[in-house]
Amino acid sequence: MLRSELPGVDPSGQISAAELQLAARNHGLPLEALAYDVTPAGLHYLLIHYDIPVVDPATWRLQVGGRVGGELELSLDELRARPAVTRAVTMECAGNGRARLSPRPISQPWLLEAVGNAEWTGVPLGALLEEARVAEGAIEVVFRGLDRGVEGGVAQQYERSLPLGEAMREEVLLAYAMNGGPLPPQHGFPLRLVVPGWYGMTSVKWLAQIAVVDEPFDGYQQARGYRLRQAPEEEGEPVTRIHPRSLMVPPGVPEFATRMRVLAAGPVTVRGRAWSGLGEVARVEVSADGGERWSDARLGPSGSRWAWRAWEWEWDAEPGEHELCCRATDAAGNAQPLEAPWNLGGYANNEVQRVPVDVEASQLDV
Amino acid sequence: MLRSELPGVDPSGQISAAELQLAARNHGLPLEALAYDVTPAGLHYLLIHYDIPVVDPATWRLQVGGRVGGELELSLDELRARPAVTRAVTMECAGNGRARLSPRPISQPWLLEAVGNAEWTGVPLGALLEEARVAEGAIEVVFRGLDRGVEGGVAQQYERSLPLGEAMREEVLLAYAMNGGPLPPQHGFPLRLVVPGWYGMTSVKWLAQIAVVDEPFDGYQQARGYRLRQAPEEEGEPVTRIHPRSLMVPPGVPEFATRMRVLAAGPVTVRGRAWSGLGEVARVEVSADGGERWSDARLGPSGSRWAWRAWEWEWDAEPGEHELCCRATDAAGNAQPLEAPWNLGGYANNEVQRVPVDVEASQLDV
Repeated sequence: MLRSELPGVDPSGQISAAELQLAARNHGLPLEALAYDVTPAGLHYLLIHYDIPVVDPATWRLQVGGRVGGELELSLDELRARPAVTRAVTMECAGNGRARLSPRPISQPWLLEAVGNAEWTGVPLGALLEEARVAEGAIEVVFRGLDRGVEGGVAQQYERSLPLGEAMREEVLLAYAMNGGPLPPQHGFPLRLVVPGWYGMTSVKWLAQIAVVDEPFDGYQQARGYRLRQAPEEEGEPVTRIHPRSLMVPPGVPEFATRMRVLAAGPVTVRGRAWSGLGEVARVEVSADGGERWSDARLGPSGSRWAWRAWEWEWDAEPGEHELCCRATDAAGNAQPLEAPWNLGGYANNEVQRVPVDVEASQLDV
Repeated sequence: MLRSELPGVDPSGQISAAELQLAARNHGLPLEALAYDVTPAGLHYLLIHYDIPVVDPATWRLQVGGRVGGELELSLDELRARPAVTRAVTMECAGNGRARLSPRPISQPWLLEAVGNAEWTGVPLGALLEEARVAEGAIEVVFRGLDRGVEGGVAQQYERSLPLGEAMREEVLLAYAMNGGPLPPQHGFPLRLVVPGWYGMTSVKWLAQIAVVDEPFDGYQQARGYRLRQAPEEEGEPVTRIHPRSLMVPPGVPEFATRMRVLAAGPVTVRGRAWSGLGEVARVEVSADGGERWSDARLGPSGSRWAWRAWEWEWDAEPGEHELCCRATDAAGNAQPLEAPWNLGGYANNEVQRVPVDVEASQLDV
């Protein structure tokens, strides 16, 4: 049996066949879809470790157990009969930006597009945990999905834990609907966890079991995966909340093969979105010269704390080649770096976006 | 301005950064989603040459003109008020299989997953053309989308033509709904062409204009793109109908990084789908030894001529490494090759799928 470790890093600029298989499965948000405040279904990013399970909602049950006073077992209908909450949440993969690191950590090769902002509907996790009566001494809650596979040599079902305090936050949902429709299979049908402000690996899909525990969970996805390390032998800091990021809709039109942007000279409104799990978005700056000079973008209305925030910036585009950049700062003082610190797993790379554009003096004939 | 030609071929096994940008945007059907007869929204393949246009349905109009007796201009409401047809159609990208060719043509690097089977609802194209009264001497119908960009050095809106006889086929639809819901933005909202049996480039998205013409259309996507060539200077044969293909749901569970399949020894039902634009699926064969010995799969019920057909095959999996393959043959006698002929654009590679599996003697502990 193939018990490979993650293959490490690739110092070349080229992507391997194995990474291409991952890229063909796991898709990102095409950046022009930042134009939609709520990401339409099918444009939201997806990162699926194993296969999408086919789940029969008639026989599926959610089990809540472990260090609780009373175990629960709930059908989908029973969950849907409870008071529902709908919340807009921006979700981002912890590996977003991975393929821009050098040397490149080998895994799903995201560039910038592993993000989406959806309206999730479901029941607050805290209410269920209260009903189950969390026992004294409990410290974490473990969430187990139905997706199975082998990773880092370990056969597993996907499992992650949250500290009890995070799990009890009122914003944390068990969601059965996305953008007003049933949860699509690829987003965790029939039920998924949604943890606003945390990177996406936390929001376990195809949820089947919730276990309250009194020792730190040391499953693969907690102790091995999703840690910031410089070398494999380090324990590493866990990846938790989303670092600030801003992304722009690349202006103009693309060249098919290179995605280079082409636009006509003159006034252009550059638009984008910004978010952070560490604090509200406080500022977005834009540069048209590759990061030499920056000026402030206008922030759109502040809506849900956990949803991205729109911004725009007026640019008088002069003929020639330019590099547009944007940079978000949150209320806690975290700003996007021009160059992110490297780590072995390729996590949390929130370097500023760079969009080369070719501004033409005349109107494009298209 | 960047006026590059397509960058040609890459003899290495590695994928370039430009191809990765395409792979991150254009996503395929995760192969386990072959389990669904109708592909859920968001799992259907997508190939988008330029950006997804944001279209206001209130001001959008479809124009029908050119060599007709009476031009038409129709709103979305007017189209929706006409008698509607719903048809299940398997659509496949002409570039499916491209990244498996050697040397690899540089473009969207599909492996096998650029396919989907959706239920499209709309109005028959033929009825509209009859209403507009096609003039004598007309030979083709040109479809223009709202997506704009630069390709092969040419600034363009995406445009393709169909011979008049193909355009008048009763199965050809102008679709405004997919799987019972409004067309998603990425599938061509508010209206797209759906040409059953032809590769996907024909089914123009974000449709705005239909022009009947009396000379062969020589736009970029007709005369330069989507032709089978060995060298750039050749005129080449146009890519038209979908060649036969079968795909299986890879059995067992995947290893995350390599997608290698692992399963326990014993009886396994291998399931998949098969389709061809050139004739009905007549036969599917499966091999468990890399294509040395083949045996017939059981075909599922034959439904819509233009939708894929289910098949299954019983396998008694013995411990060890095996390579599963499947091969479809259509009623016109076209069969999938073990090795497809190479072409410069990387089109229509319908080589048999090969799925390496690792069969373990004992039950997997997952």
